[in-house]
Amino acid sequence: MHTTAEETAEILSSSSVRATARKRAAAKWAAILIIGFAIALSPRPEGITPQSWRLLAIFIATIVGSVLHPLPIGAMVMIGVIALIATGTLTINEALSRYADSTVWLVLGAFFLSRGMIKTGLGHRIAFLFIRAIGRHALGLAYALVATGAMLASVIPSTTARCGGIIFPIASSISEAFDSKPGVTARRFGAFLMVTLYQSEVVICAMFLTSAAVNPMLAQFTQQVTGIELSYSFWALTLAVPAIVSLTIVPFLIYRLFPPEIRHTPEAAKMAAEELVKLGRLSSDEKIMFGVFILAATLWMTKGWHGLDYAVVALIGVGALLLAGIIDWDDVLGERNGWDVFIWYGGLLMMGSALGETGLTKRFADFSASFTAGWRWWAALGILLLIYFYAHYSFASITTHVAAMYIPFLTVVIAAGAPPFLAVLALTSFSHLSASLTHYGTTTGPIYFGSGYVSQSDWWRLGLIASVFNILIWTTVGFSWWKVLRLW
Amino acid sequence: MHTTAEETAEILSSSSVRATARKRAAAKWAAILIIGFAIALSPRPEGITPQSWRLLAIFIATIVGSVLHPLPIGAMVMIGVIALIATGTLTINEALSRYADSTVWLVLGAFFLSRGMIKTGLGHRIAFLFIRAIGRHALGLAYALVATGAMLASVIPSTTARCGGIIFPIASSISEAFDSKPGVTARRFGAFLMVTLYQSEVVICAMFLTSAAVNPMLAQFTQQVTGIELSYSFWALTLAVPAIVSLTIVPFLIYRLFPPEIRHTPEAAKMAAEELVKLGRLSSDEKIMFGVFILAATLWMTKGWHGLDYAVVALIGVGALLLAGIIDWDDVLGERNGWDVFIWYGGLLMMGSALGETGLTKRFADFSASFTAGWRWWAALGILLLIYFYAHYSFASITTHVAAMYIPFLTVVIAAGAPPFLAVLALTSFSHLSASLTHYGTTTGPIYFGSGYVSQSDWWRLGLIASVFNILIWTTVGFSWWKVLRLW
Repeated sequence: MHTTAEETAEILSSSSVRATARKRAAAKWAAILIIGFAIALSPRPEGITPQSWRLLAIFIATIVGSVLHPLPIGAMVMIGVIALIATGTLTINEALSRYADSTVWLVLGAFFLSRGMIKTGLGHRIAFLFIRAIGRHALGLAYALVATGAMLASVIPSTTARCGGIIFPIASSISEAFDSKPGVTARRFGAFLMVTLYQSEVVICAMFLTSAAVNPMLAQFTQQVTGIELSYSFWALTLAVPAIVSLTIVPFLIYRLFPPEIRHTPEAAKMAAEELVKLGRLSSDEKIMFGVFILAATLWMTKGWHGLDYAVVALIGVGALLLAGIIDWDDVLGERNGWDVFIWYGGLLMMGSALGETGLTKRFADFSASFTAGWRWWAALGILLLIYFYAHYSFASITTHVAAMYIPFLTVVIAAGAPPFLAVLALTSFSHLSASLTHYGTTTGPIYFGSGYVSQSDWWRLGLIASVFNILIWTTVGFSWWKVLRLW
Repeated sequence: MHTTAEETAEILSSSSVRATARKRAAAKWAAILIIGFAIALSPRPEGITPQSWRLLAIFIATIVGSVLHPLPIGAMVMIGVIALIATGTLTINEALSRYADSTVWLVLGAFFLSRGMIKTGLGHRIAFLFIRAIGRHALGLAYALVATGAMLASVIPSTTARCGGIIFPIASSISEAFDSKPGVTARRFGAFLMVTLYQSEVVICAMFLTSAAVNPMLAQFTQQVTGIELSYSFWALTLAVPAIVSLTIVPFLIYRLFPPEIRHTPEAAKMAAEELVKLGRLSSDEKIMFGVFILAATLWMTKGWHGLDYAVVALIGVGALLLAGIIDWDDVLGERNGWDVFIWYGGLLMMGSALGETGLTKRFADFSASFTAGWRWWAALGILLLIYFYAHYSFASITTHVAAMYIPFLTVVIAAGAPPFLAVLALTSFSHLSASLTHYGTTTGPIYFGSGYVSQSDWWRLGLIASVFNILIWTTVGFSWWKVLRLW
């Protein structure tokens, strides 16, 4: 076999790329190990057991690993779990315990449900209905897709299913229908739409207990620290209102700052109408899917009355879809994103609660209370919220952000005297809103940014502006709403 | 759109096929529900709680469902688990508890390990080494592949990985290299090889604690009923010896009864030698994989000394493969067979142990003791073993067979006075050997039979003959060996 000089150069450069990648990965692993060992070997506070101290070291190393991610987050968490067992820090039963936790199965079940939403075409139909109704203008079209996302988020925590499976493909084909493609024609339409959808998505994730996989984890951590129960209905009541304000203002903001060249889009409404004709009447599969969807949302909303666990409801829905043949067993087994969440979720939840039992959180609270002593609670809340928010520049995942910072920040803010409900709701919503900043802020970032319509500088600039608006909206509208509800 | 008469006929016939399939599925569901409700509504023995009785009804309905399988077994078990929760028979925490069980994670971890065996090519290399060494004759070639399977089975419980991923593709390409294809040339070589490999596979599954996913479940059920611990080393010591005798005799038997036309196969040995040249020297990935393989087998074998849980060892192996980049996170997430086993295994294990706690097993033992009263224990053992064995004609899965019959049969046999170790080892090995009977007896059946080399009548005839030989081998060699070990 002969290789041309060009091919040789390519092989050399690809092997040097690989060598660089290997070096970078090695540097990352070195950093993770150094941090882990530094903590493990540093003097342990009195009254803390060696196991607890090692747990802290492995937990922090896992979080650092999730930030640097030489491997995907799921793998990092799995390796963390294995390290906990292999070092005798936890028994295998303790380390695996949360894989039987009902909240973990709630999320897993909801991922399987979302498969039905894509497969039956019901998700697409909902989007087309909204577009036909209000999609005759660029802004209306954006609102139509935002409304679809918000509606799906009441049941579907899989952002991949929601955005990757339903909304992004539609957004992408609409943009192309307007002859707007990445490159010179990007600003005609696609660029505006992608930024708007991403900026709205981070708000949508904060709307419902089930709009992001991390939300039930936030609820569990909240319960652990404060005893407050973030039920499905309470979450929707407190957070959906400021979310709706954000979802109204932010797209309009983007529309003014980063307008599309095409503003009148009757073709989109027409296209949606045509697609709806193609879809025909609601199929029996779609009807069943819709029934399961409504049933799940209703049962979650009314848990106070019947007491059925969230996960039971999700699993009954999955059972119904399997029985009706709407999803088949292979869909369940092939739901990679669901299994991914299952692994990292069960692992992080376990680490979070195991840490809670060590007494380290209590120590941290005592320590930081002395630190913020003399501050007004609102000053402490304000400063810590801002730090919590803008720290997200260094996180590639809301989950990692929450796992690393939620419990300590909540503990500190409450120790400083902030009203517990206010602290919980602010930190919970900021966990998602902060993802607006970058193109890697949450899972959907790579989808929308990766479409190639928007430059990184535009993306970051708009993200920063949106973040300021979101903070203003949530600290005024949100705080007032929670005051009206007498939560503080 | 115009459709020709032919197309119309096709559409009609395919829609009638679908209608028939739907009717059959409905009949199956009806049977499952009728059996479940019949048990649930029949008078409950005194001292048994309503919950326990409902648990029995749902368990039996799940097993009947797994036999009739209107949906795959994993889905049936999942629906059974959901039914247990939805009917308030078990709490959600009880129902999900076994998904945190270390034996379930042992099996899941071992499935991930097996991915590395395929991906690195090490499994293929092992097969080629055996073929180069002893593959110059048809029988030697078969032994070479059997030896490969047996070796892999010491660590890899995934029959799909072992047979589907490594052995079957090699067997298939060798057969084709001898111009033997399904049809007129089948008997040249392929037919002999496929039957031999399947008949050996059922024996291999009985060899090690880790040679089939169901084996750790057999170990748990055994512990539950008798308190006997089937450790990795004890299993290998007691069952590998008769297995090796079977693996020597059965291929020879098939060779005599169903001989290939081609008996001298120096080309196969040559082909293997060429493949080994192509593979080149052992790559570093293969070396690491081999190291993990040996380490896992050694640590499992020596558990008595260090006490490391089997699952920890498997998970450390998975962690090592992830760190070394031999498997990547997507391999883990995409391991459908592993997730399938995870769901049914966790569900069946939970049902089996929950039933054990109800007192129903104890009742059953008392009842059947009165039934077999006056029998010699060896008569009871003999008759019940034969029933247990040939009952497999009605099972499409060893797991279903074990879940349905292992605990009650073991209980009865022991109640009849049979030595516990003898009863356990006989029933455990017969669980696998019985799969020899049909082409759907265990997961690999559809692979080897599905290759199309052998007619169903030949397959069943040879399976029946092999079953007789296996029973003779295990009740003479096996029973004697266990006597030598002073187990009875």
